[in-house]
Amino acid sequence: MTDPIASPTNPRIKAVVRLRDRTERDATGRFVVEGYRELTRASDAGIRIETLLVCPDLYLGENEPALADRIRATGTEVLEVSAAAFRKASYRDRPEGLLAVAERFATGLDRIPLTGIPLLLVAEGIEKPGNLGTMLRTADAAGATGVIVADPTTDPFNPNVVRASLGTLFTVPLAIASSAVVITHLRASGVRLLAATPAGPVAHFAADMTGPVALVIGSEQYGLTAVWLEAADQAVVIPMPGSVDSLNAAMAAGILLFEAVRQRAAAAHS
Amino acid sequence: MTDPIASPTNPRIKAVVRLRDRTERDATGRFVVEGYRELTRASDAGIRIETLLVCPDLYLGENEPALADRIRATGTEVLEVSAAAFRKASYRDRPEGLLAVAERFATGLDRIPLTGIPLLLVAEGIEKPGNLGTMLRTADAAGATGVIVADPTTDPFNPNVVRASLGTLFTVPLAIASSAVVITHLRASGVRLLAATPAGPVAHFAADMTGPVALVIGSEQYGLTAVWLEAADQAVVIPMPGSVDSLNAAMAAGILLFEAVRQRAAAAHS
Repeated sequence: MTDPIASPTNPRIKAVVRLRDRTERDATGRFVVEGYRELTRASDAGIRIETLLVCPDLYLGENEPALADRIRATGTEVLEVSAAAFRKASYRDRPEGLLAVAERFATGLDRIPLTGIPLLLVAEGIEKPGNLGTMLRTADAAGATGVIVADPTTDPFNPNVVRASLGTLFTVPLAIASSAVVITHLRASGVRLLAATPAGPVAHFAADMTGPVALVIGSEQYGLTAVWLEAADQAVVIPMPGSVDSLNAAMAAGILLFEAVRQRAAAAHS
Repeated sequence: MTDPIASPTNPRIKAVVRLRDRTERDATGRFVVEGYRELTRASDAGIRIETLLVCPDLYLGENEPALADRIRATGTEVLEVSAAAFRKASYRDRPEGLLAVAERFATGLDRIPLTGIPLLLVAEGIEKPGNLGTMLRTADAAGATGVIVADPTTDPFNPNVVRASLGTLFTVPLAIASSAVVITHLRASGVRLLAATPAGPVAHFAADMTGPVALVIGSEQYGLTAVWLEAADQAVVIPMPGSVDSLNAAMAAGILLFEAVRQRAAAAHS
């Protein structure tokens, strides 16, 4: 290994920092994956990692060198950097000494397998990276077949999505497309569209989720657009007996997803 | 009204900034409530507001002056401040021109009404203000009887709790106590304790939540302590058919709370 990169103003460090900007990610087809857990999931999923920055002084555990070796063995360039340079490249308060530049992977609708009895989450126009990341993590936990990001406002390759997802961006099948294309695709595949909206005439738990189904959630500020409300097979509301009349968008997604888990478990046992 | 406070280094502004520190909140018995929605809920709930800082240049809507007048009418000191001074006092990226110093309210266990069929959320050792705030918001939406914060790590009067709760810190009854005291109190009141833990032998949806029940959630990092696992009437797991084996703590709370909403609606209709 060559000498560590010492300077926070090294061009390689600056190139990583630039990937915080979506325009740079779009122009280069690259994005940043930081952290042991996230990189483990990326590596397991076969994500192509171009460059790995390592800073052994910042390692929290004992497994980091083995992960770095595993990634190096796939032909990835590994650069050792100083703590000062690593902190500059990192977008975390407490960096863990592992940060990679990875190639953006394909996100076509064909990434989502529609065999069996699909359980999909469709998120329209989500604005906050933290919410999209939490949706991915929760969809993975629920065993969802995939997550479809329709008309995204936030970029799924935003570093805060990777982070909030805990790396499930790499484990749960992900597709990105316009709402019109998603609707046509799911209809042609026989997937029922359940749209979550405060105006839904039926409680979410009264809707059947045991067949092929897509749970559709709208943006934080505006909810679902008319396109989805018109396309939906059924509009459902999460009943809120309390004083507030809204939930965080990721929370709403989680409540719907785990209602599907419940219904499917009940159906399997009956 | 006297001349506006122009300088960000004015002692009154500095006193507000100091309330970001828990030690200052504990010493003064004061905390900060910022934002139109949050202050509306605080005012509706009868929270004693000592000082209101207003900056009309930053108002986003048209209702702010009426709210300021309503708060002034209760005897609150209202100070007009410059945008520069307001931005210094604010902990938000986009301040809305309304920020108050309020008196901490009582948070004894007697604040939680245990009549009827209580549905309680107990959160043990929660570390992140955003999670505690989201739990409050979600508990309110679910119509929970109250939220009990056991052995808090994060201070419920942290400004980020107020913010993430959207002001439901003032609408849902809140109590703070040690785990031992909470357990004794709830047992004496005939409330069943359902502890959420990955080791739970029963799925959460297989546990009865239609009677008086407390849903108990542990900290983000460590889950529930042995004290709660031993005291619980039933340990339940949220089944996760996917690849990750954990949910965000607030998400887990929301999934349990809305399962209780579902069961209670079903019981009411049967």
